[in-house]
Amino acid sequence: MVLAEVGVGEPVTERARVEILDAAAACFMERGYAATSIDDVARRLRATKGRIYHHFSSKADLFAQIFRTGMDMNFAAIEPLRSLDEPAIAIWTKMAHTHVRQMIVTRAYQRVVWEGVEMHLRGATTPEQRSQLNELVEYRSQYSSVFRLQMARARDQGDMHFADLSIANQMMFMALNSPIFWYKPRPRESAQDIDNIVDQVVAFARGGLGGKDRERP
Amino acid sequence: MVLAEVGVGEPVTERARVEILDAAAACFMERGYAATSIDDVARRLRATKGRIYHHFSSKADLFAQIFRTGMDMNFAAIEPLRSLDEPAIAIWTKMAHTHVRQMIVTRAYQRVVWEGVEMHLRGATTPEQRSQLNELVEYRSQYSSVFRLQMARARDQGDMHFADLSIANQMMFMALNSPIFWYKPRPRESAQDIDNIVDQVVAFARGGLGGKDRERP
Repeated sequence: MVLAEVGVGEPVTERARVEILDAAAACFMERGYAATSIDDVARRLRATKGRIYHHFSSKADLFAQIFRTGMDMNFAAIEPLRSLDEPAIAIWTKMAHTHVRQMIVTRAYQRVVWEGVEMHLRGATTPEQRSQLNELVEYRSQYSSVFRLQMARARDQGDMHFADLSIANQMMFMALNSPIFWYKPRPRESAQDIDNIVDQVVAFARGGLGGKDRERP
Repeated sequence: MVLAEVGVGEPVTERARVEILDAAAACFMERGYAATSIDDVARRLRATKGRIYHHFSSKADLFAQIFRTGMDMNFAAIEPLRSLDEPAIAIWTKMAHTHVRQMIVTRAYQRVVWEGVEMHLRGATTPEQRSQLNELVEYRSQYSSVFRLQMARARDQGDMHFADLSIANQMMFMALNSPIFWYKPRPRESAQDIDNIVDQVVAFARGGLGGKDRERP
């Protein structure tokens, strides 16, 4: 399944690139960064290592591109919601639904984002990878601050209740991101089944933020 | 700081063992299992590798003992609360406070528990380590089911509101465990500061579970 979007008419090389990203993201999700080799990715693709090196210079480069693509997809998904003319809690709720769906549908990419943030915190990387990760983690902070802004507004509007904004933001992302750890696709799962999971995750986070008028599933 | 408890009068070897566990847990927390060597642990202890091998047969053994000790401490901490004669939501709330405090105070051990579960899910281990991890993950499931039981009772008693018990349980542990990822000790932090963080984490999880009568901080 090609997860990252490729528009009709985009060059064949872009499609080839996305196929490699998908395969590599799946490998990183299953085994983690350290235990994954370019050989593993090639095996999964039934391709040569040469085909991968034609597009990506190293395992670290591949990892960074997956991180970036994961965040690009998240930003694109919430973009139409940011400027809606609605109460902040309504905007937050729509963004949260969109985010949780992203965590489920593109979870291999999102696991790489998670692992990248961990690697950044641990600092266990080369100087080159460190500067790449610094930039990516900053990109992710910008995304986080879009949610933070709506949470702060919702609290000002009397629709959310929490003490410290930073702690609330951490808790919220842990809750909304959690399906990357526990979600497992089931045979014959319908779109309705996934909606149902998304609803429960958002309801939990919204309740956690003291959200008013919450409709429990 | 010796985190795992050693009773007064316990043999010196037990104290030596706990010092090694503390140092190794700190190394695993900072770098992760794969990137940590027995040499790193010895360096942190300013001891020889021989001293470590006197007590533990391998890095995998050390890791497993930290996992077990982390869970032993968690079980011991909630034990007095399990059989209180109070509404389930009150018992759950006390257990949740205790659990979050554990996550903060013994977080190096709890990060190992987290990484052990990840390694178990990924299956990227030797057969011997796999059987050890199977047992430890089962031990952790027993702990999880203590909370699950109180959540189910609280819902029956009309004091919590959530749809699927398994999803609610996953969300709850992600929320309560989250300080192992974002909590950083600050200079001159008081017991009151930590209480305040614990209160906010528990309030989030309790709100997420649709807990009634919640006192927001």
